[in-house]
Amino acid sequence: MSAKIIRRSLLLVCLLSGIAAAIAAPAVTRPLSLAAQGSFAVGGAQKTEPGSFDPLKPLEPAGQSYHGDHAAVFYQVPVKAKKLPLVMLHGAGQSMRTWQSTPDGREGFQNIFLRRGFATYLIDQPRRGNAGRSMVEGTLKPTADEQLWFNQFRVGNWPAYFDGVQFPRDAESLNQYFRQMTPNTGAYDATVIADALSALFERVGDGVLLTHSQGGGPGWLTAIRNPGVRAIVSFEPGSGFVFPEGEVPEPMPSAFDTLRGQAIPLADFLALTKIPIVIYYGDNIPAQASALPGQDSWRVRLAMARAWRDAVNRHGGNVMVIHLPEIGIRGNTHFAFSDLNNLQIADLVSDFLHRNRLDR
Amino acid sequence: MSAKIIRRSLLLVCLLSGIAAAIAAPAVTRPLSLAAQGSFAVGGAQKTEPGSFDPLKPLEPAGQSYHGDHAAVFYQVPVKAKKLPLVMLHGAGQSMRTWQSTPDGREGFQNIFLRRGFATYLIDQPRRGNAGRSMVEGTLKPTADEQLWFNQFRVGNWPAYFDGVQFPRDAESLNQYFRQMTPNTGAYDATVIADALSALFERVGDGVLLTHSQGGGPGWLTAIRNPGVRAIVSFEPGSGFVFPEGEVPEPMPSAFDTLRGQAIPLADFLALTKIPIVIYYGDNIPAQASALPGQDSWRVRLAMARAWRDAVNRHGGNVMVIHLPEIGIRGNTHFAFSDLNNLQIADLVSDFLHRNRLDR
Repeated sequence: MSAKIIRRSLLLVCLLSGIAAAIAAPAVTRPLSLAAQGSFAVGGAQKTEPGSFDPLKPLEPAGQSYHGDHAAVFYQVPVKAKKLPLVMLHGAGQSMRTWQSTPDGREGFQNIFLRRGFATYLIDQPRRGNAGRSMVEGTLKPTADEQLWFNQFRVGNWPAYFDGVQFPRDAESLNQYFRQMTPNTGAYDATVIADALSALFERVGDGVLLTHSQGGGPGWLTAIRNPGVRAIVSFEPGSGFVFPEGEVPEPMPSAFDTLRGQAIPLADFLALTKIPIVIYYGDNIPAQASALPGQDSWRVRLAMARAWRDAVNRHGGNVMVIHLPEIGIRGNTHFAFSDLNNLQIADLVSDFLHRNRLDR
Repeated sequence: MSAKIIRRSLLLVCLLSGIAAAIAAPAVTRPLSLAAQGSFAVGGAQKTEPGSFDPLKPLEPAGQSYHGDHAAVFYQVPVKAKKLPLVMLHGAGQSMRTWQSTPDGREGFQNIFLRRGFATYLIDQPRRGNAGRSMVEGTLKPTADEQLWFNQFRVGNWPAYFDGVQFPRDAESLNQYFRQMTPNTGAYDATVIADALSALFERVGDGVLLTHSQGGGPGWLTAIRNPGVRAIVSFEPGSGFVFPEGEVPEPMPSAFDTLRGQAIPLADFLALTKIPIVIYYGDNIPAQASALPGQDSWRVRLAMARAWRDAVNRHGGNVMVIHLPEIGIRGNTHFAFSDLNNLQIADLVSDFLHRNRLDR
């Protein structure tokens, strides 16, 4: 071969490897350079049983203590970190693993935003995951429910995937997706979670809070408790929408449940008008009532989020609800941050942070 | 002030800040450079309920699946990693957080060995932490038991700390230590854990397994299942000592319980003779019987470990039991890898790896 042909072949090989690398992604990224990483517990409660501890009878609770209801945190600080860290709170049945590798092994928001210069604080909320010591008793049953989640998380209508869904279709990705779930070790309590998250902002200082799904409600409560929450990015908040007393919308029935707003004092609510908030919802949310609970539940949640946006903004706030298909981004499930197009979604978040000067 | 005095004052300030930084440790280390990090689930079981899934009745289990009993893994690969990764398995009531920050916020074995060039794979074992979906039902009670653990983990005799104990004495460190605990979400099962760990070695390839306490037993079983386990470093194994049929020592009663060896086929046992194994025990283990369960339990565990070492070595193995006070290292608790002298303990591990050519 002539030198020219060799050069052309090499170019072609490079181009093809580039394409292959773009598809396989994880292996070929540049190194992550971290100034620090570690874990700690934050917030929580404790109790001590009456009586005296007898070291000869250590299995008797008398006089012994118990610490629980804290959050567990894993933090990473990149070299030359931006000023504000990102605090990431998972949704129902999930843990900090939500933000780590995607079900098909690509980088999740943890790595993506570390690479973009943000410190990340990943949470296991009280009574979940590695924050499993709960102040209340819990019973765990291995109840088969994964087809519920496949539909509820809008991957498709089991066993069919939605056309164009931003979710990998291989069996191992679905296996990983299901095994990402982990149960409550005690009853879900939004107040307990918000208390622990507020303690985290007390410790870390100002930051931006990212929430997912069930995490939305505790997210609002945290911002009410702690002005260190400088902004909220909420993916598909599913419950816990708080309104000023007297402004709670009518309950919104769906084929899944009836969604209700929660009344709080106006003085508390006004804290939510002081910070920029963006809410994202993905695709395959019906505009009209559907008999399918897994879809219809999101119809009313999106409607409630819009009512909530209007309430906050009516009082001077700055809330945006972005229904992704309306800006031409199609196929997203309930987990936009780990979907196949999660880099595109991360760009939206980066834009939001930049426009609000939160990325300095 | 003269320029000279200013220079001297600056020097003094620098020296003092240097000392303060050395005490506060974490902030002043060099950056960690990672080629990759992420999480995944590995191993586990699944079931599907009889019947057909009805999308209109998603809360009914019929026809639905459930995945559980996997391990959850967080991995990090440093730039220019050594060939063999370190797989780290926690003990009873613990999670992967065992290997992360110490209770007083210093770097644990995760960071220490990343800095020494090893990839690390941190485990939440099946039915623990973020691997919480169990195939069996569990009930969790907030039972006050922390004075038991204070004594059992040989921090001291509550409320007194042992003289010279390698554990920080401030209240916040003890708070963090207690909040590091997280419960089983289903019954402890060494076989289930070993199955998941073996699946991990299947996926990752050869590596060195570090275990702590209750993790010791599943560690031996994993090495029996999978020749990918090239060596074991076991901190204070507390149960699950396996012996060839006919060679099980007499049960060893203590003030805490009666420790028993477990019989396995000789052919399985022989796998343990093929790899180097080092076992470490810390300080404050009585040589003679003690009435205190928290101490006496370790007297028989150390004795059982020595009997186990002798059994493996009798069949041609290479097991060392290092009782740290015997080599002049004093004050270690049940958690030598996170004690105040954990860098010294890491040096012992590094020496072991080097002598066995496992650090190439």
